[in-house]
Formats: sequence, structure tokens, C-alpha cells
Amino acid sequence: MLKRLLRPVAALALLLAPMAALADGLIDNVNGMTLDEKGDVVRFTGILFNRDGKITQILTREDKRPKKVEWKLDMGGKTLLPGMIDAHGHVMGLGSQLMLLDLSATTSLDEALAKIKAYADANPTKWILGGGWNQETWKLGRFPTAADLDKVVSDRPVWLERVDGHAAWANSRAIQIAGVTAANKDTNGGRIERDAKGAPAGVFVDGAMGLVDKFIPKPTPRERNAAFLAAQDKLLSLGITASADMGTTTDDWLTYRRIADIGQLRMRIMSYAHGVETALQVAGQGPTPWLYGDKLRMGGIKLYADGALGSRGAWLKAEYSDAPGNKGLGFLTDDQLLNLMARGAMDNFQIAVHAIGDRANQQVLDAVEVLSDTYKEDRRWRIEHAQIVDPKDLPRFAKLGVIASMQPVHQTSDMNMAEARLGKDRLAGAYAWKTMLKDGTHIAFGSDYPVESPDPWAGWAVSFTRTDANGQPFGGWRIEEAVTREQGWAGFTTGAAWAGFAETLIGRLAPGMRADFIIIDRDPLLAAPADLRRTQVLETWVGGARVYVKK
Amino acid sequence: MLKRLLRPVAALALLLAPMAALADGLIDNVNGMTLDEKGDVVRFTGILFNRDGKITQILTREDKRPKKVEWKLDMGGKTLLPGMIDAHGHVMGLGSQLMLLDLSATTSLDEALAKIKAYADANPTKWILGGGWNQETWKLGRFPTAADLDKVVSDRPVWLERVDGHAAWANSRAIQIAGVTAANKDTNGGRIERDAKGAPAGVFVDGAMGLVDKFIPKPTPRERNAAFLAAQDKLLSLGITASADMGTTTDDWLTYRRIADIGQLRMRIMSYAHGVETALQVAGQGPTPWLYGDKLRMGGIKLYADGALGSRGAWLKAEYSDAPGNKGLGFLTDDQLLNLMARGAMDNFQIAVHAIGDRANQQVLDAVEVLSDTYKEDRRWRIEHAQIVDPKDLPRFAKLGVIASMQPVHQTSDMNMAEARLGKDRLAGAYAWKTMLKDGTHIAFGSDYPVESPDPWAGWAVSFTRTDANGQPFGGWRIEEAVTREQGWAGFTTGAAWAGFAETLIGRLAPGMRADFIIIDRDPLLAAPADLRRTQVLETWVGGARVYVKK
Repeated sequence: MLKRLLRPVAALALLLAPMAALADGLIDNVNGMTLDEKGDVVRFTGILFNRDGKITQILTREDKRPKKVEWKLDMGGKTLLPGMIDAHGHVMGLGSQLMLLDLSATTSLDEALAKIKAYADANPTKWILGGGWNQETWKLGRFPTAADLDKVVSDRPVWLERVDGHAAWANSRAIQIAGVTAANKDTNGGRIERDAKGAPAGVFVDGAMGLVDKFIPKPTPRERNAAFLAAQDKLLSLGITASADMGTTTDDWLTYRRIADIGQLRMRIMSYAHGVETALQVAGQGPTPWLYGDKLRMGGIKLYADGALGSRGAWLKAEYSDAPGNKGLGFLTDDQLLNLMARGAMDNFQIAVHAIGDRANQQVLDAVEVLSDTYKEDRRWRIEHAQIVDPKDLPRFAKLGVIASMQPVHQTSDMNMAEARLGKDRLAGAYAWKTMLKDGTHIAFGSDYPVESPDPWAGWAVSFTRTDANGQPFGGWRIEEAVTREQGWAGFTTGAAWAGFAETLIGRLAPGMRADFIIIDRDPLLAAPADLRRTQVLETWVGGARVYVKK
Repeated sequence: MLKRLLRPVAALALLLAPMAALADGLIDNVNGMTLDEKGDVVRFTGILFNRDGKITQILTREDKRPKKVEWKLDMGGKTLLPGMIDAHGHVMGLGSQLMLLDLSATTSLDEALAKIKAYADANPTKWILGGGWNQETWKLGRFPTAADLDKVVSDRPVWLERVDGHAAWANSRAIQIAGVTAANKDTNGGRIERDAKGAPAGVFVDGAMGLVDKFIPKPTPRERNAAFLAAQDKLLSLGITASADMGTTTDDWLTYRRIADIGQLRMRIMSYAHGVETALQVAGQGPTPWLYGDKLRMGGIKLYADGALGSRGAWLKAEYSDAPGNKGLGFLTDDQLLNLMARGAMDNFQIAVHAIGDRANQQVLDAVEVLSDTYKEDRRWRIEHAQIVDPKDLPRFAKLGVIASMQPVHQTSDMNMAEARLGKDRLAGAYAWKTMLKDGTHIAFGSDYPVESPDPWAGWAVSFTRTDANGQPFGGWRIEEAVTREQGWAGFTTGAAWAGFAETLIGRLAPGMRADFIIIDRDPLLAAPADLRRTQVLETWVGGARVYVKK
């Protein structure tokens, strides 16, 4: 009898060996914290998850540890929290930026040239692209020249933007490819720096930059792959385990799939197509399912209602204080916006509309009001940025169920400009996080990387301080609109997940949720704001797999 | 002791329940046949496979059946063979064709109008598109008119090609959208049929068809999805479990992925990108892995060296017999072809080049000869069609390792035309299947659907008879180039798999191979050729799942 029973046991045990999905791993002895569904902080000391990457148990100090787990890690009391989520970023934009040569730290022309040569040697790209130089910092007393550049790179075109983006520096090869000669006149509000003979000297200012810009080739798939991997590494190193990708093009999508097909997609991407046509081309008659183990989904469409405040492209109800007669410009008529939103909503895509000025925000809210007659179910309309909102329109977000997807760091970057553009009196509804929350609006926080750094710790710190990295302005800019530290955290976790229809997967740590978490070097609920900004991410885990370890 | 042992057994048994992958299914009592690696016929009576869709055992009558299998099917002695593989088809082309309204069977204008109305009612497409009408068959004594069409469809444009493709019939809405009026002159070698007042009457002949054609919108993603599903159903119903897709566009690829993402890809597609740029955009720096459980892979690139024989676009070494002075035209210079092939090969894509005329075939062989200096490993260069080959060039296929991907039915469709175009004396190397095989050339067979029907049974019958559906010409056209019945079968199974780098997955039934097989209503190795053509596929299985059952 014994023998007969033993055999099947042995046989079954063998069969079990590859059943990894059923084996639990335990991360123990952590200073664990997460928000729960109500926004309350939950503390714990251990987390148990299976090989499917799903959390099976959250353990407090008092909870008994399971006797047998496949593996166990003792974290020595380090802090563990859910992975951060960026509700508004541009993954490939960040990747492209990271691939560029960055000269912003150089202090002399010679140092810059050495860096350019090293970069060119390491990167076999057709063009050497980058920027960040400043001839003032170099104390050069003149603009750099093509001849300077030719000394280090002459076989390939080089094109480097000045730190302010208002000029760029070319080598002779780039000028030759662009076909610019002494015969070219200064046009388009631009200027070609010239040598004694009138030939282009190397630097092209403002409108003249276009003469060369248009010859820069589109990135190759190989370069796109590399850019994506660089962006992913950057985001994971900051503790971001999931991000909305606001404006995925077909080429972006194909890149994500190429990477995922070879098993290298390690973060989660909530993709919003770049316009209706892209959504239809990629996803067809509705959102894609979650693909690759809940790592990638095209669920929505990104649209634009207006431009930005800096360039006075944001669409205002009244004219700009610093530009009489100018109210900015809506990108679409009311009908056009409504039609695009309806076209996407018809196929169940979530709609996320960029709106910065108060008039643009009103236009989107008006459209949602119309569409709500048709689409009564949970649509989670999103307004991206929602920076300047007429106080009259603020309660409409909650009433219409429109998510405010906002970027705390924009507030500190833009506060002085916003005051110049609108005057203090018209900023009652600007970056109005607290009021929105009080109204019952769903808020999601992000960074708008690469426009700002993707660093979520800075964003979180701003959310409850309304001060910049230098602690300015003292006491916080319109501090009455600051949210609590926990509410700010929610914006980067549960709020961002909810905004992406992902609240059953990510954003907090609880049984059944994906094991996306980070180990950091301090307690973010206790750290002073300046310290919170200095948070170091030690490890990043996505779906129960460790995808980043700080070196 | 007993109790202690029993518990884990019970626990493990419970855990085992979802372990479907380990449970075997048995299909028994079949007249089973497959080729082996050497091309010999192997017979069997049962096939055992697991839930991963892989064959675990092939059983002869003498083999003991396993005592416990999860499920079992008794096939009552029906014939089972490996799924057929089409080495050269156009999946979305077939799908598009299947979506069109087919009027070829109509015998009167009234019957056609009734069919058009029914189609319009059932299909909410923006345009009603189709063809196959013939006013001669209808005994109409005139061309049909827009007014005829308007009686059944007036709200949407209708555009129906004549059976020969040399004219098309529009309704008033289509003419209005195209903006064609009495003012339009006949140009471009075309003619607008006109009413008494000179206004367009409805039919547009040859060059005039372009006036309307250009307004036909691109298919929507929804239409593409539907077209794909129609093609898949058609192929599975014919016993085709895998197909090369020769010239996948980005939109085609996105369609396959949409379908696969929702679990509806039921056949296998070996995708060859439509040109180098598409391959790079989709697959990036090399072939994709097999995706979706070995169902989809972009492994190669389709290029074109020349046109077709019918239009005298095939590129010949000497002038056409029926068009003195004309040798057809190569699409690419030697350098262009070499560069494109090298560009794809550099990233490890397999290269498949369309070449019909003997000069085009020589050009591709020359290019492979050059490239073979660089790429010495197993590259499996393919020539698609290889219809007219200079006998001097025939041995170069084997010598250079170039696969001849040919379509048996093209031989019967084209034989009379080929004799007219080239004269009998120049056809020594035409459709030279037997000679190629003797030389040691790898042969893959397909249909070039939708140019021909995807029916593989007709293709197989032609391969060893060189006669058409009517048994003509008696004795077979250049019968010395017929292959054996088994060799013809290999072309549609093991040969087609090898040509797609898929010989370890599909093409024959053996342990470790995917369980792709079909149940048919006769023995294809015994049936007379006319009977083989009438083969009915009763069931089609892909990866161990039944994906088609004859109603």
C-alpha cells in the first residue's frame, strides 16, 4: 500500500517542479506602506506573491509567515511602496531625449569637443544630434563654428542645439547636406551666422534652424528600440513601474511590440493613441486587451484642444495680460472636437484631451456634457493638464466625471510665467488641486516627461508644498491649493491607475493586485520635502520580477 | 503514515487540475498518413497530443493506447493528414476578395439587382464594391446603367467591375462623388458610356475606371478584421493550416495582431514583409520571434524582380514571340536588387523575390551568387514563381541553395499563354518541377491566392498530372516535369514548411511537432486525380484545437 501511494506522490512531485506559478515568494522585514481603496495608509512588514506576479498576501508584523515558500528575501527594514505611476508622459519622447548628446554640463569648448568626439565614437548613428551648449558658460566670447566641430567629427553631420533651443551648431558635413551656402539669405525670422566671406559659419539662429532640421533622418527601428530601452531604464530607476503614454504613434506602438515580443518590456504602458486615426490603425474597433501579462494596452486616444502657456498658445477666455488682443487659439472648432471625441468613444476608446487655457478646458467640458447624453456608462473622460480653469468650470469636472490629469511640477515651473500671462486675479482656478479634490474630482498626477523630468519624487513633494526645488516661494505658491502628502501620493499611484482603467491591477498593494513595488532609502511619509526629493530608489519590481537594482 | 501520504496526494491532485498542458488527448482509429523527414510516407492509426498543442506520440495499429487520456475521439477510420501549407498566398488579398459582392453567377440583370440589394442591406460599408457581371450572360443587349443600380441602392456609392476587369458599373451616387459629368472627356485609353445627353450612363471602360476608382476609401480596421476572418475561414475550410503571406503591409500586420490579441488567430502565418521598409518598421532589427504560440512570425521580405507573363511584364532573355522587340522589363537594376537583398539579409531577414521571366530569374540567381560570399549560413533565399527559367540557370537553384516557390495551378492556367508568349522551344525550363527536384533544389508549392483559388487539392493534383480540371491536355503538359504524388504532397507540407524556416514546427506529424492536421473524406494517395480535386475537408485542427468542422 505504502509503495503504491509513494509512486504517485513522487510522480506528482516531479510534475510540480515546473509549476512555478503556484510557488510563492516572500519579501519580508520591510517598512511597507500603501494606500487602500479609500486613500488610507496601510502599513505592513511582508509581502507574498506568486510567479504569476500577483500579490497573494500582505503581512503585518503579527501575521504568521507561511512555512514553505519557494524563496524569501529579508529587506532589513527598508521601505517598500507600490510602484509609482506617471499619468502623463511621452515614453518615446523621453527615449529620444536620452539618446541625444548632452552638453549642458560642459564648461569650455574643448571639453565639449572632447565629449562630442567620445559620443561620436560610441554611437554609429547617421547624424550626431544633441544640445545643451552655451558659449557664455564656456566664456568663448563668440559662437562656436563648424570648423571647431570639424576637428572632432567630419565624416558625419553634427547638429547640436543651444541650451535655450533658439540656435543650433552644425559641422561642415551638416551644412553641406543641407546645401546652405553664402547665397542663402536670412529668412523666416532666422539668422545664419557667417564667416568673413559670408559663408555659413556653423551656428543657425531661430528660423534658420529649419534649413538643417529638415534633413535629419527619421530614427531607424534599431534607434527606436534603443531609445525605448533607455527610457524604460530611466523610468524604472526612478521607481516608475507604469506610465500613461500620451500620444502613441504607430511607430511607437510597433516599437513597444518589438520590445515586448522579445520579452524586454519590463514596465507597464497605458497607451493613448496619437489621434483617432492611429487608434483605429493600431487597435481597430476598440481598446486592445492588456497584452504581455498586463504590460501594454492601447485603451485611449489623445487629442489636443489648445497649445501651451509659454508660447501663448493656450486658449483663454479673456486676452493675455501680457499680450493685449491675444486670447491664444483653440486647435479645433467645437464641432471638430465633439466629432473626434464621439468617433473615439463610439469604439469605446477612453478620450484624453490636452487643455491648458480656461477656454480650452471649457470647450472640452462642454463636449463631455453633450457626449454624456449618449455615453452614460463609466467613460473616464480625461483633461490633460487642466492648468488654467475658470472657477465657474471647476465643479464641472466632478459633475461630469472628468478626470483632471495634472503635473505638479508644471505649477512650480510655470508659476511666474502664469502670473505674467494672466495676472494674479485670474489664477483662482489655476493648478487647483485641492478644490478639485474637494469637489470630488478624480485626480491623476504625472510629469509630462520629457517636458519636465520624470522624477516622481519632485512631483510628489510639490503636491503638498507648492514650492520648487529651492523651497521657493516661501510658504508655497497659492498654498491653499496644496493637497495632503497622502493625496499627492494617491495622485501618483491609485489616482493614476484609476485614470488608466487599471485600478484593479496596479496603484496599491493588496491581494490580487500585481506585485509592482519599489524599495527606497527613506520613509516618504516622514521625510521633509527637500529630503523626499532626494529619494533614492534601491530596487524596482514589476509583476514580481526585479527589473532594476541601484548600482 | 498512510494518512500523511494521502494528504499531499490529495493536495497535489487538486493543484494538478488546472495543469491542462500535461493532459493528453487521443485521436484514434484514423487512416493516418504523413511524410517523414526523408519524404517517405508513414502510416498510423492514432495521434496523441498535449494541451500545448504538440504531438506526443504517433500510434500504429500495434501500439498500445495509453490507459488514461483526458479525452479521446474515435474517427471511424477517416483519413487524417498533416495540415496543408500554402507557400505563397496573400491573406488580406483573399480576405478583401471574399468581402466583395460576387455577381459572376447571375444570369439576368434582375437577378443581379436583387443580389446587390441583399448585399447592401447586409453590409453597412461606405461603398458597395464587387464585380463579376457580364451583360452578355444576362442577354441584356446593352450595358447596364446607373439608373438600373439606383433602383436598388441610391444612398451609397456602388462600383462593380465587369467579369473581365476591363469595365465597371457605377450608380449615380458614385458618379456624383467622383464628380464625373458630361464635361469629362474620354482619356487615358478609357471610355465613359454616355446617355443621349452625353452624361455618364453608368459604365466606365478601361482607363476611365480610374475616374471613380480613386475615390474608393481605404478599408477601415473593422473591415480589415472582417476580411481577415473571412480569409482564415476559407483557408481552414480547405485544409490549409499555415500559409506564407507574401507581401505583408504594416496595416496587414496590425490586423493580424489585433485578431491574435483577442485570441482569434487560428491559422499560422509566415509573414514576408512588403519590402524592406515594412520589415524594418514592423520587425525592426530582425525577424520577429514566433508569436501567439507559433502562429505568427515576420521572418522575411518580399521583393519583385519583374511583372507577369499575361501582361508581358515578365522579364525575358529574348523578345516575346508574340511581341517582337519586347523583352518585358526588370523592376530593379542589378545594383538596386542587390542592395535591397543585402539590406534585408544584413538584419537576418529571409529574402523572397518574385521572378517570372528567365531574365528575372537569372538576375536573382546572380544576386544570390554575390551575396553568398557574405552570407554563407543557411539563408534559404527564395524565388517566387520561377516560372520561366533558362535551362542553363536551373541547376543554379540547387547550387546556390535557392528555394523554388512555385504554384502548380499556374502551370495549367498559363500553359497556352506561355506557349504563345515564348513559343514551345523556349519552354524547356518552364515550370520545371521534376528537373529542379532532380538537381536537389528545395521546392515549395502554393497557389498565389487570390490570383488562383487557394484550393490545395487542385494544386496537388496538377503537380503529378500537369492537367487542368478537365483533364486537359490529355497525358499532361510537358509531363516529363511532373513530380510524383508524394513529391507534390511534400511541396504543400514539408517543403512549404522548410521554405518558411518552420520545418521543426509544422509540415509533418511526429512527436514534438505541432498538432496541425486535417480529417478528409478520401485517401489522397489512392484517389484518382479528378477525385483528389474533389476532396472535402471534414475537420481542421491547429495546435491541437479543432478550428473548422464541415457543416
